[in-house]
Amino acid sequence: MHPDAFKGWSAQALTRVESALGEWVPASAPAGLGEAMRYGVLDGGKRLRALLVLAAAEAAGACATPEGREAALRAACAVELIHAYSLVHDDMPCMDNDVLRRGKPTVHVKYGEAQAMLAGDAMQALAFEVLTPDAGEGAGVPPALQARLSRLLARASGQSGMAGGQAIDLASVGQALNEATLRDMHQRKTGALLRASVQMGAACGGLQADSAAWQALSDYGHAMGLAFQIVDDVLDATQGSEVLGKTAGKDADANKPTYVSLLGLQGARDEAMGLLQQALSALSRSGLGVDATAPLRALAERIVQRDH
Amino acid sequence: MHPDAFKGWSAQALTRVESALGEWVPASAPAGLGEAMRYGVLDGGKRLRALLVLAAAEAAGACATPEGREAALRAACAVELIHAYSLVHDDMPCMDNDVLRRGKPTVHVKYGEAQAMLAGDAMQALAFEVLTPDAGEGAGVPPALQARLSRLLARASGQSGMAGGQAIDLASVGQALNEATLRDMHQRKTGALLRASVQMGAACGGLQADSAAWQALSDYGHAMGLAFQIVDDVLDATQGSEVLGKTAGKDADANKPTYVSLLGLQGARDEAMGLLQQALSALSRSGLGVDATAPLRALAERIVQRDH
Repeated sequence: MHPDAFKGWSAQALTRVESALGEWVPASAPAGLGEAMRYGVLDGGKRLRALLVLAAAEAAGACATPEGREAALRAACAVELIHAYSLVHDDMPCMDNDVLRRGKPTVHVKYGEAQAMLAGDAMQALAFEVLTPDAGEGAGVPPALQARLSRLLARASGQSGMAGGQAIDLASVGQALNEATLRDMHQRKTGALLRASVQMGAACGGLQADSAAWQALSDYGHAMGLAFQIVDDVLDATQGSEVLGKTAGKDADANKPTYVSLLGLQGARDEAMGLLQQALSALSRSGLGVDATAPLRALAERIVQRDH
Repeated sequence: MHPDAFKGWSAQALTRVESALGEWVPASAPAGLGEAMRYGVLDGGKRLRALLVLAAAEAAGACATPEGREAALRAACAVELIHAYSLVHDDMPCMDNDVLRRGKPTVHVKYGEAQAMLAGDAMQALAFEVLTPDAGEGAGVPPALQARLSRLLARASGQSGMAGGQAIDLASVGQALNEATLRDMHQRKTGALLRASVQMGAACGGLQADSAAWQALSDYGHAMGLAFQIVDDVLDATQGSEVLGKTAGKDADANKPTYVSLLGLQGARDEAMGLLQQALSALSRSGLGVDATAPLRALAERIVQRDH
């Protein structure tokens, strides 16, 4: 995919996602809750997870029907809501105590801790609301697909996925983790939701869990989940807070293990490149068309080669 | 329903719920997260929401099929998980800062604030996991029912329901709320989930949203949602911490408005009795059998006449 073509594809995708989030995250939620939710979700972030959903949906042919397109958009917004809620809670004083996120004060700094916790809680619930529209809403996402998307998202977010990874992270401060444990932690903490993003897009195209294409896209998602975190650690060690829009070097300062502290800078970069090759070769063996998988290929390259 | 018959019915229901929660809330979740989740969910509470689900399921005929029974049990556990997570987060220092719950130290006192926040987050995700079993799990809850249950639960938990009510509560400290606002707050904060419990049970029996029986059960749930909170306020004003298993009189001490401060003790009691009558008359006009609705009738009486 030509870089300009990908730019056009992702610009269009992002416009759809921002517009849908703007509609679905309600300003009208009571007592300032809606304002705090919108502050935590809208107008920020690279929307990588949403782009993975939409790119996988395109690869799986979801865009051929209005229902598939609607389902993919809802899945894209739901994963962003889960990701955004996890950041809001992560930034709180009892967790990372971070005051800066995407170059702005974090939600609890702006709205107080209680409202930040509630906003995060409500964002998680909203993710499942968005996945389960009434028959009268949207373009009629089939109920069986609603259930499948909810299942994938819940499992990636909960104790066996993101929340479990955060618990390992909590317990790891000052510990000499080996590579297997570090990998397990990240596979849950960030990897599970990134892989689920790809799987949810694949589900919107009707790919069945026993198909070769589903397995290949899951492998792609798995590789990208790991690569994303490794690149994050590399950037955290090499870039300033200004470029990243968040406090840089915090993990190393907190004596938390990172891929860079474990593999060295070059080792981490090599590992990320190896995962990129794995992801691309998974796409090749998926049996899905070269054109259809072009956005996923371009996204993989962008994930590994990004500089912030 | 004879009191002994209800005792037998609810003992059997509670055994099923505790046993299922014991199985589904995983001790194996990493880094102590499972232990904190189990501490927050298991072996505590009256399980009123679970009983409402199972009683409504019985009224709606869900118990006639293995799928209906399985769905109702999952719905009962899911609402308890949502309720339990809300208590864990509510008790934290940035919210109510409560150290005692069901006569035991609260989750954050025992496991720390960070783990408590994560445990609550993971409990919310687990609720939706429990509602969306794989084809290989359980007795095959139909995907369309999984989606419907997830929809009901998400809406009752999020910004328009429980989380929204908590936000109003947060903003109400020291405010002179009028009755309409107080009612709106409680209708969201506790009422929405109680009503959803009844609706989820009704959905397990296949009642359609445009049926008279669905509307009657929803009305019952609405009335019980309000009555529950009014009785809570009455007990809070008249009983000691020891009986309640939590710190009594806290809302009044914090200058939060309550039904008692608004209506007076007798006024609040009268209101609760009026709601009980509304709930019972909704059951009468539901068109569902007298035997089938007996547990719902008995539960309504227990909710209003409880002493802790």
